[in-house]
Amino acid sequence: MFNKITIIGCGLIGSSLLRVISKKKLAKEINVFDKSKEVSSFIKKNLSANVFNDISESVKNSDLVIISTPLGSYKEVLLSIKSSLKKNVILTDTGSVKKEVNKIISNLNLQDIFWIASHPIAGTEFSGPEAGFAELFDNRWCILSTENEKGTKEIERLKSFWVAIGSKVKIMNFEDHDNVLSLTSHLPHAIAYSIVRTVMNNDDKFKDEVIQYSASGLRDFTRIAASDPIMWRDIFIDNSENILKVLNSFSENLEEIKKAIQSKSAEKLSNIFSSTRKLRKEIIKAGQETDKPNFGRK
Amino acid sequence: MFNKITIIGCGLIGSSLLRVISKKKLAKEINVFDKSKEVSSFIKKNLSANVFNDISESVKNSDLVIISTPLGSYKEVLLSIKSSLKKNVILTDTGSVKKEVNKIISNLNLQDIFWIASHPIAGTEFSGPEAGFAELFDNRWCILSTENEKGTKEIERLKSFWVAIGSKVKIMNFEDHDNVLSLTSHLPHAIAYSIVRTVMNNDDKFKDEVIQYSASGLRDFTRIAASDPIMWRDIFIDNSENILKVLNSFSENLEEIKKAIQSKSAEKLSNIFSSTRKLRKEIIKAGQETDKPNFGRK
Repeated sequence: MFNKITIIGCGLIGSSLLRVISKKKLAKEINVFDKSKEVSSFIKKNLSANVFNDISESVKNSDLVIISTPLGSYKEVLLSIKSSLKKNVILTDTGSVKKEVNKIISNLNLQDIFWIASHPIAGTEFSGPEAGFAELFDNRWCILSTENEKGTKEIERLKSFWVAIGSKVKIMNFEDHDNVLSLTSHLPHAIAYSIVRTVMNNDDKFKDEVIQYSASGLRDFTRIAASDPIMWRDIFIDNSENILKVLNSFSENLEEIKKAIQSKSAEKLSNIFSSTRKLRKEIIKAGQETDKPNFGRK
Repeated sequence: MFNKITIIGCGLIGSSLLRVISKKKLAKEINVFDKSKEVSSFIKKNLSANVFNDISESVKNSDLVIISTPLGSYKEVLLSIKSSLKKNVILTDTGSVKKEVNKIISNLNLQDIFWIASHPIAGTEFSGPEAGFAELFDNRWCILSTENEKGTKEIERLKSFWVAIGSKVKIMNFEDHDNVLSLTSHLPHAIAYSIVRTVMNNDDKFKDEVIQYSASGLRDFTRIAASDPIMWRDIFIDNSENILKVLNSFSENLEEIKKAIQSKSAEKLSNIFSSTRKLRKEIIKAGQETDKPNFGRK
């Protein structure tokens, strides 16, 4: 599919891409760069790729370059590779926020480069290359964003790449992407972090009990609150405006529930609690969630 | 183990109890009452028990009576059964809040009754007898509460019952129970309902996208927000004081995160996001959660 693919940043997402590209033979050669020596030596030992110590060398002659590092390092990465990129290369990423990144790239005035952002909606609460696996993208959505929304040859090529990997592809502009993801992803993460902190900051008297009885609800939230802190720090900085907006409307909704509790209003409470069942059914119907009780966990 | 057990209310929890008592032969006879005709006919058709139309008849001669209805109906249930209870019966329940219920029972001045509250920390997002299964309580905690914390014969008997069912038992006073559960269970539920409402109330423009990309975080919260509305209405009314307290400290924590986002403070954000990873590890270590990525769901 490609002669040479370069993956920059080889954590959970990058290493999963490496595994699936290699498994499905989507490139003749795969180059990899990661600034961590530990990650590089893990890849050398366990996976099959050309591992580079020099980031600019790693992108030379590549037809597809995928940036899979935390958002905060994009600028540095781009400055290091820009003069080594092949003419007409497809440059993409796997980041969770798009508008800020697109600004950075526009300001770099790259010539003869096809910049098409990718966001595979896939991941786990684990991080690092040992957590990756080839099936991570199976049946998941991948959102592509580009300034030029018309179906150029390169967009079609990148689309086919994600489809070959197992994903379903949707094209969305940068602003809409950041808006939607602030609801589906960034809001839940902010809330999960807050809830786990609330519980952890509580009276030490019940520390053991909180852990023992976490199956009554809390444990669900700890999964998301265990996600990679650096990745999430950068998401919150890059998408701050949208996130603050949804957090404010969340707080309003919470105040409504608080009032209903305070007034012990049975009717209001059951209306609130009935209104929320529908969404899960729709998510299950859309193939984005298991229909097994308790996520099917044992 | 018991000659006769009566289960009042045969939804997810009650029907799971019926299944496991029957499977493990923990009673010679099992009586069941549910005010819903549909539930009663489901039990008659699919499970093995004496199904009663008259609640007071259902408890006659029983050695163990288990109330498994929503908290709001306890008073009515207790008034209907109190004069038919056998002398020295063990009366228990499966409710998620204890202090208010204990007040009701104290006010009834029941004679020759051993009232020992039970709270099995087990459940799923589904409700109704068709959702029940015999393994629901396996390796889960069950909290017993009683005014008399000394190990009477009856407490030991009830404890052995839950252990036989597959649970681990802890004794805790009514107040501590309601306090701990407001953190581990009621707070997460209030938050899950708020988050799902926030997303559902949002601009209809992105309705499909929100469902499609829910795997980026949101879907985890929809599970809890799909729980039984009547059950949860009653929990929020019965434990309002504790719940409002933890919701307020949650809001304070959220404000801190909002400030860190507003000031784009990388250090503060990564400190917050790093601090929350530990809790999940402890929960997994305590055997209360799977260590598989994404709850092991496919």
